[in-house]
Amino acid sequence: MMKEAFWEQWFPRMVEWRRHLHMNPEVSYHEKETSRFVADRLRELGLEVKTDVGGYGVIGILRGDKPGKTIVLRADMDALPIEDGKSCEYKSSVPGVMHACGHDGHTSMLLGAAAYYSTYREELPGEIRFMFQPAEEVCPGGAIEMIKDGAIEGADVVYGLHLWTPLPVGTAASAPGPLMAAADEFFIDITGRGGHGGMPHVTADALVAGAALVMQLQTIVSRTVDPLQPAVVTIGTMQAGTAQNVIASSCRITGTVRTFDEATRTLIRERIEMMARTVSETYGTESSVRYLIGYPALVNDEQETARFFRIAPKVFGEGQVQLSPKLMPAEDFAYYLQKLPGCFMFVGAGNPQKDAVYPHHHPMFDFDEEAMRYGVQLLVEMVSSCREEG
Amino acid sequence: MMKEAFWEQWFPRMVEWRRHLHMNPEVSYHEKETSRFVADRLRELGLEVKTDVGGYGVIGILRGDKPGKTIVLRADMDALPIEDGKSCEYKSSVPGVMHACGHDGHTSMLLGAAAYYSTYREELPGEIRFMFQPAEEVCPGGAIEMIKDGAIEGADVVYGLHLWTPLPVGTAASAPGPLMAAADEFFIDITGRGGHGGMPHVTADALVAGAALVMQLQTIVSRTVDPLQPAVVTIGTMQAGTAQNVIASSCRITGTVRTFDEATRTLIRERIEMMARTVSETYGTESSVRYLIGYPALVNDEQETARFFRIAPKVFGEGQVQLSPKLMPAEDFAYYLQKLPGCFMFVGAGNPQKDAVYPHHHPMFDFDEEAMRYGVQLLVEMVSSCREEG
Amino acid sequence: MMKEAFWEQWFPRMVEWRRHLHMNPEVSYHEKETSRFVADRLRELGLEVKTDVGGYGVIGILRGDKPGKTIVLRADMDALPIEDGKSCEYKSSVPGVMHACGHDGHTSMLLGAAAYYSTYREELPGEIRFMFQPAEEVCPGGAIEMIKDGAIEGADVVYGLHLWTPLPVGTAASAPGPLMAAADEFFIDITGRGGHGGMPHVTADALVAGAALVMQLQTIVSRTVDPLQPAVVTIGTMQAGTAQNVIASSCRITGTVRTFDEATRTLIRERIEMMARTVSETYGTESSVRYLIGYPALVNDEQETARFFRIAPKVFGEGQVQLSPKLMPAEDFAYYLQKLPGCFMFVGAGNPQKDAVYPHHHPMFDFDEEAMRYGVQLLVEMVSSCREEG
Amino acid sequence: MMKEAFWEQWFPRMVEWRRHLHMNPEVSYHEKETSRFVADRLRELGLEVKTDVGGYGVIGILRGDKPGKTIVLRADMDALPIEDGKSCEYKSSVPGVMHACGHDGHTSMLLGAAAYYSTYREELPGEIRFMFQPAEEVCPGGAIEMIKDGAIEGADVVYGLHLWTPLPVGTAASAPGPLMAAADEFFIDITGRGGHGGMPHVTADALVAGAALVMQLQTIVSRTVDPLQPAVVTIGTMQAGTAQNVIASSCRITGTVRTFDEATRTLIRERIEMMARTVSETYGTESSVRYLIGYPALVNDEQETARFFRIAPKVFGEGQVQLSPKLMPAEDFAYYLQKLPGCFMFVGAGNPQKDAVYPHHHPMFDFDEEAMRYGVQLLVEMVSSCREEG
Repeated sequence: MMKEAFWEQWFPRMVEWRRHLHMNPEVSYHEKETSRFVADRLRELGLEVKTDVGGYGVIGILRGDKPGKTIVLRADMDALPIEDGKSCEYKSSVPGVMHACGHDGHTSMLLGAAAYYSTYREELPGEIRFMFQPAEEVCPGGAIEMIKDGAIEGADVVYGLHLWTPLPVGTAASAPGPLMAAADEFFIDITGRGGHGGMPHVTADALVAGAALVMQLQTIVSRTVDPLQPAVVTIGTMQAGTAQNVIASSCRITGTVRTFDEATRTLIRERIEMMARTVSETYGTESSVRYLIGYPALVNDEQETARFFRIAPKVFGEGQVQLSPKLMPAEDFAYYLQKLPGCFMFVGAGNPQKDAVYPHHHPMFDFDEEAMRYGVQLLVEMVSSCREEG
Repeated sequence: MMKEAFWEQWFPRMVEWRRHLHMNPEVSYHEKETSRFVADRLRELGLEVKTDVGGYGVIGILRGDKPGKTIVLRADMDALPIEDGKSCEYKSSVPGVMHACGHDGHTSMLLGAAAYYSTYREELPGEIRFMFQPAEEVCPGGAIEMIKDGAIEGADVVYGLHLWTPLPVGTAASAPGPLMAAADEFFIDITGRGGHGGMPHVTADALVAGAALVMQLQTIVSRTVDPLQPAVVTIGTMQAGTAQNVIASSCRITGTVRTFDEATRTLIRERIEMMARTVSETYGTESSVRYLIGYPALVNDEQETARFFRIAPKVFGEGQVQLSPKLMPAEDFAYYLQKLPGCFMFVGAGNPQKDAVYPHHHPMFDFDEEAMRYGVQLLVEMVSSCREEG
Repeated sequence: MMKEAFWEQWFPRMVEWRRHLHMNPEVSYHEKETSRFVADRLRELGLEVKTDVGGYGVIGILRGDKPGKTIVLRADMDALPIEDGKSCEYKSSVPGVMHACGHDGHTSMLLGAAAYYSTYREELPGEIRFMFQPAEEVCPGGAIEMIKDGAIEGADVVYGLHLWTPLPVGTAASAPGPLMAAADEFFIDITGRGGHGGMPHVTADALVAGAALVMQLQTIVSRTVDPLQPAVVTIGTMQAGTAQNVIASSCRITGTVRTFDEATRTLIRERIEMMARTVSETYGTESSVRYLIGYPALVNDEQETARFFRIAPKVFGEGQVQLSPKLMPAEDFAYYLQKLPGCFMFVGAGNPQKDAVYPHHHPMFDFDEEAMRYGVQLLVEMVSSCREEG
Repeated sequence: MMKEAFWEQWFPRMVEWRRHLHMNPEVSYHEKETSRFVADRLRELGLEVKTDVGGYGVIGILRGDKPGKTIVLRADMDALPIEDGKSCEYKSSVPGVMHACGHDGHTSMLLGAAAYYSTYREELPGEIRFMFQPAEEVCPGGAIEMIKDGAIEGADVVYGLHLWTPLPVGTAASAPGPLMAAADEFFIDITGRGGHGGMPHVTADALVAGAALVMQLQTIVSRTVDPLQPAVVTIGTMQAGTAQNVIASSCRITGTVRTFDEATRTLIRERIEMMARTVSETYGTESSVRYLIGYPALVNDEQETARFFRIAPKVFGEGQVQLSPKLMPAEDFAYYLQKLPGCFMFVGAGNPQKDAVYPHHHPMFDFDEEAMRYGVQLLVEMVSSCREEG
């Protein structure tokens, strides 16, 4: 376990870093100052630093004296276009932008881990990469760009974590295999022929075609997807017509698809595209589908997740670590796990006594900063365990 | 108006003929004895007789001394596969067969008209054809065969009538233009892949495809047909699946289409065939459609129906003749009206005092025989009026 | 027939009036100057004038020396909020407002008829009311207000006409019974519970409820309405949801209902209200329906329409007068016909040679002014015929 | 591990027993001779025997000299109403009945286990109950009756297994928590008013109501059930109408529901009942729902399944034991697991070389009898492990 002296020295700094970031949030793809802040801290800690990796990505590198594994630790840095609703002293100073998902904490924790290893460097075999990623919140996301830029080249394993207010501080959760959903989006335009509300026979009613399509799409999940494969097809919006007494000439339908498995994902996409076509034909209308591939499902490595379930109880205590249910939000950490074994972990950060009760992306979102202590410790212990295997 | 002496002599015989036919009904395409009976009577009356016209059809011909129009009067002769539920002395002697639509009366009336003209032959310019048609109740129907066999060749006009119990005896009705519906039938087979009720993803559910098709078919009338064109698409049956816990591999849908106009009829057929195809495709199933063309819409000639509205009040009295609404049953008299000007007329035959209150095709159906007196008179007056025009 | 001298004197003035009105259009309920213009003309002609009848309504009264019927002739005066797209010298001078339905012609013709009778006043038994109505284009419409204000009190019959570019100039049409549709509007709000696009089970999806409702509403016309009763239920708009990955918390559906018969109209309203309720319940959502009663069906009197079919051929020539099909637009002349016998008539006004080919309410709409000559004559001849009956 | 001497003596007898039962199958609730056969064998082995437990259930009891746990081992005994399609010498001698699910093997294995413990009785602490259950294949099932009759009273743990031809012989599988589905059935009758196919307005079309209901039911799984909860709502049959030209007065819909969790099961039942009601109301029809509660989900105890995953590799070899996916068929062993901790296990029994390749309930179904050797051993080792815990 980590030495008390470390915490005395560094935890106040981690809080300070986190609050600085919280007050100076930057939205996805615009993390310029955050990136500079991170790079400055890493240099202060004496790490080798790469900047502008896959955009505003930053990597701090520590190489040990002995040969060993290359372990990647990842934090995401971007904030959200949400107005901060809190009134605390460290509330966002940028109108309409806030860290409402805890990425400020992720960044601060990873700096804390870097501080730890820079202090205890003599212990180090192999290499640790402290990877600070931009643009997790918005597709196509920063991960894919950092990978293209070589960020995980030659690495052996990757760990990441997410502060999670639905779990109480002092607990943790993860699961082997598919843990977070793949999230795609679709946009369907149906074009008919509008006309006088009293003369349907000279029109092709795009609104009725759209409503029929919505109903047929329900059967993808009810009839076509393996019932053992969690999947969601949500039609989020439908906009058709311009006046109550005019038959609609066009209808726009948009939606999202959530899956945990590539075959199901492909199947659903094919069905949506096919149904848009056949239902349009049924109503004498035409349609086009734009299908936007989002992040893939996040699939934890079996062995590395087994490691989590061995290690985490030492950090959080027996009975404080649970098997996570699958989660519907998507996370571009998924891309790293397509390339490397690894584990994505949830660190409890909720605490009613500190008003840390709001869901992620809520204007009142905050987390218990004590969670960062657990998070750093979890990263360090995962790294230690991984190295011990040689 | 017709002479009282005629009625004294012939009305009892008409009743006798009708009751003989009522006791000896023959179903469509099997009117052998009825045909012989009719031919015998026509010969007794001294008419030239053609038999076996378009099947069991019979034509009696009276040619006048002077040149003039050739006028066709038509009666249908077939009975129905219904068990007679009445207890009167003239009830059907044939189990499971009865004259439940009044064709016995039609035949008797037309014989009555033949008797009239054979008696008053000297009055006759031109030619009258007394046409007794088989198989009106069952598609493809006797009319089309009689036409093929030359029954109306060289004719100028055609009249037919129907005894009608929904109208009280002593009244009549008709309408110019489309009066009775075209009636088609369709049979759709959807073939999917069945399977275990708990494993929809390895099947193609023919039942859901069928239900979806039923819902889409509703939009033919609601969205595709001119609202001013009466039209019905009824799905009469749907049969899918064999057990509650097995996904259905097949679904059979049958239905009927009623229209009054050929363009609408064609449109509906095309939509049904198209929708069966596109909805099947939507559900990964296959389908076949058998579409059976039935009788066309019966469309009365404007001029001849105007004649009816001038003439009928003289027979039935002022205020006793009404404009008929369109009627959904079909009638193969429609085929004659595609070839000749003419008019199809309804002769009221209901009478609560004589228990003539049941709808056509009902096991208790009967009509007031007094209606036959009106019917013969209507035919004779229509013929007279037509001839006067030269 | 009307004397040539009349036309020589008055037709140029009618054209002048019409063009003045065309250049100075006023939308429904704002016909202040139009009303003043009409009243001034009527006073010049020596008529007794009532103004501000049911709003900007104007009535000119001519009472004859002899007793006789009180005959009401009606014109509507309002323009539409449409930008005039024509480039002729008499195009609208008011931005965004134009006479795109011919009411300027109606007004001018009725002034022409007033001129005729003021000139030939000695001929007059009984009374003629020249009724200029505001606000025909917008519900609840001017007719109902004028009736409330006594405009047709004591009257015996009412005639109105509509210039109609789909018919060529020199022709006319009308029909007995229901001729123009009743037009109602409905607005349905469905309220569910929105939520994360990946978590449908904690929401009540208002969009799916809306789509299901659209499909069920199709069965009103296909299954519930008498196929012989023309009826349309159009859903003109559906707006649901705010983002593709958020389940919709609300859905708004708007539409129009067209019928020709009160029982069908009531039936459809009841079904819409019922289905909104039951479908909402099916999806765990709530709904409210606002149903706006519009103009009733316009039902021409049988006798007065028979008069039209006797009289009009004298004005337009044999073969130039036709039976009109039912029309889906609504017309508040319907209210007068609920109180008085009368006839609403269409006067052909189309002429490709004068570019009078655009549909009513089109920015390029115009009519052949020669049609006004026919229109005035038709009104005068209808009045004459009516009076002759005493 | 079990001694070779045991197998030399008893395996030929197990095969003999199994083939005797295979040749003399008895369907659910009629296992009279099977029950007698089992009781005879148990008595030969010197066990205390209870017969007629919960019907034709039989329990053999072995009590050890020392105190210890009471362990229940369960086999099911019933055959299926399927015609045996095999041609081997031990094929069914009863027309239309066969052991097409392997219950003959289950019975024989449990007798084998009884033979083992009767031979090595001195080893025994506590009590073993060899429970032979009737009527597993048909709801409400034999388990619930045996429980009522006290069969598992005072017991500490229950084990059961299923020979499984989809898995190759020499392998095994199970899973903690929900493993096999709850299976319920529903029967919905919709009653409308039938009528002439051309007159929908005087009917209430039960077929369209049924089709609409089928479509709405699809949304239960797509919108109402937690996507992480596997669930199936299958409509297996829909029967509506009697003739293509008559509107259907009634519609019968039947289906099955599969779930793994009681809350989801209750939710689905409520939705089906509610939707039947609201959709019927939408179409002016009436409906009744009969919902038949079937077996609950089979939920394996976490600890006892962990035992399986420790023990089974010793019997089948490392890498031969897998985590089973959830399975959609139901099993009334679920009732025992509601009362006692325990584990239900699948024993691979497929072998292409012995033609043991057909799915369960197939007329050609057979299993590799070698699987029985594994099955007995698995039971014995589970019992041993359980006892060692004291």
